[in-house]
Amino acid sequence: MYRVGVDLGGTTIKVGIVDGDKKIIAKNAVKTSGDYVNVIKDMANAIKDLLAENSIEISKCVSIGIGSPGLIDFKNNLVLYSCNLDWHDVRLVEELQKHIDLPAFVSNDANCAAYGEVLAGAARGCENAIMITLGTGVGGGIILDGKVFEGGHVGATELGHVVLVVDGEDCACGRKGCFEAYSSATALIRETKKVAKANPNSLINKCANNNFDEINGKTVFDAAELGDLDAKNVINNYIKYLGEAIANLANTFRPDKIILGGGVCNQGEKLTKPLTEYILPRVHASDKSFVSEIVIAELGNDAGIIGAAFLEN
Amino acid sequence: MYRVGVDLGGTTIKVGIVDGDKKIIAKNAVKTSGDYVNVIKDMANAIKDLLAENSIEISKCVSIGIGSPGLIDFKNNLVLYSCNLDWHDVRLVEELQKHIDLPAFVSNDANCAAYGEVLAGAARGCENAIMITLGTGVGGGIILDGKVFEGGHVGATELGHVVLVVDGEDCACGRKGCFEAYSSATALIRETKKVAKANPNSLINKCANNNFDEINGKTVFDAAELGDLDAKNVINNYIKYLGEAIANLANTFRPDKIILGGGVCNQGEKLTKPLTEYILPRVHASDKSFVSEIVIAELGNDAGIIGAAFLEN
Repeated sequence: MYRVGVDLGGTTIKVGIVDGDKKIIAKNAVKTSGDYVNVIKDMANAIKDLLAENSIEISKCVSIGIGSPGLIDFKNNLVLYSCNLDWHDVRLVEELQKHIDLPAFVSNDANCAAYGEVLAGAARGCENAIMITLGTGVGGGIILDGKVFEGGHVGATELGHVVLVVDGEDCACGRKGCFEAYSSATALIRETKKVAKANPNSLINKCANNNFDEINGKTVFDAAELGDLDAKNVINNYIKYLGEAIANLANTFRPDKIILGGGVCNQGEKLTKPLTEYILPRVHASDKSFVSEIVIAELGNDAGIIGAAFLEN
Repeated sequence: MYRVGVDLGGTTIKVGIVDGDKKIIAKNAVKTSGDYVNVIKDMANAIKDLLAENSIEISKCVSIGIGSPGLIDFKNNLVLYSCNLDWHDVRLVEELQKHIDLPAFVSNDANCAAYGEVLAGAARGCENAIMITLGTGVGGGIILDGKVFEGGHVGATELGHVVLVVDGEDCACGRKGCFEAYSSATALIRETKKVAKANPNSLINKCANNNFDEINGKTVFDAAELGDLDAKNVINNYIKYLGEAIANLANTFRPDKIILGGGVCNQGEKLTKPLTEYILPRVHASDKSFVSEIVIAELGNDAGIIGAAFLEN
């Protein structure tokens, strides 16, 4: 039997057929365009086409799972709100089932990515894991006892909007001092630019071709590699806040692993090594208890497809 | 059938017999004294005595549950470390079963209190709730799907040691800026004393009989009641940090209720009302989702006994 996983994004809808070994055997992508009725019709067609191309009958599929951005009501199969899609109260599953007669589920995309990494990636075999996605924002997905943790009610696992510094940096959500305001790629770029501006001789500027607008999440690591002290300071500070947030998650959930995803994580050991050192004295009673391992996500965009495919009630 | 619940503290061992309606039908207490072998023998005797006094045979009891301070390994029935008891790696259940032949379980005392409030107190009927105990320190207990959440590994649900302000106030645990360092009764007294010292005319001093050492967790509320502005500021600040922490918990777990326990909570609505107002704009997407209700614990010390009694694997 097969399962269908969908990673619904603001620009593309990625569809994959996943086998019982949690491997994607085929995938395709279509553009996200038009209103929700259109997007969901396109999604359904992309699924049907992919199944047909691979000579898989619908009867050979267990279910369809969709990872969606935004505020998701898992129990009621709703996208309550998504800024990226400009959707409000969309009955995603009901609408999709007008086109394909299969059980279907929707969860937050960060949850699906976490689940995918637990099923087939960096946290394979773990019962408890948390994935933090460091992108434009900071997303969080929590797996407890091998299942996606949806929380008591809609709005749980918004880990990016947990305050790390009361009265701290402004966050896009309206609060101040959120984890996202320190650990997103956006925050890293903000801090990199601050330093680059304050010190025009910093190698940060050189690494961005002396073009302020070219500074991205990688620039500061490139400059640090060349020995730039300003860049090293920015990175150390980034590690510090990210480390505090990870220690907090360990003190709350104490999962087997904490998985880092998103573009910043291409830095691999440059993140996990100092972070592991940073959290050790900050994880409560770390000398007498288990310290969660910090790992880098392995599956990239596939994680969301695989995790979505295995959603179930 | 009955269940036995034990609230093991540094000064007393409280024992209760709990019936199927989650009511304590009899309880007693003995002093905590001597080494662990002695404490556990005393505990066993207190249980046996209480059962005998109430003409309940051991065969009429399902199990014994113990709420213990410190770092507990629930799966392995161990008290790994307790500062209050000065215990290290104590096989509490194994030792107790030398005296009484019943299934037995041990969990952290804050977990048991949370479970008790969910079973029979302020969060009766809730599937998901978090209890925060504001005492000398800050304890946390999390109930998910009607069960005590023990986390992936030992050391989870240490909610008092989740950092709220990176580089903030010193915490007893060695970290800086922990929730406990802002929201414990100890922290409230620290801030009250700061203000009382800075302004000798403050009514705070009057409310403490002009004796600095008499300032306790209630003093600042008494002074505010008399209209003292300094006192009101201390309370507003206390509400602010506690509110940030509660909003963080809502954004992580979105439970039905967040229960406040411990001495400070005798203030009742003086806490819940401003806290409820404070968190509303800080709970993520609160206009589109469920906002966890903040309530005051109802059962006092009985919560720990009732919760412990219903522990099970």
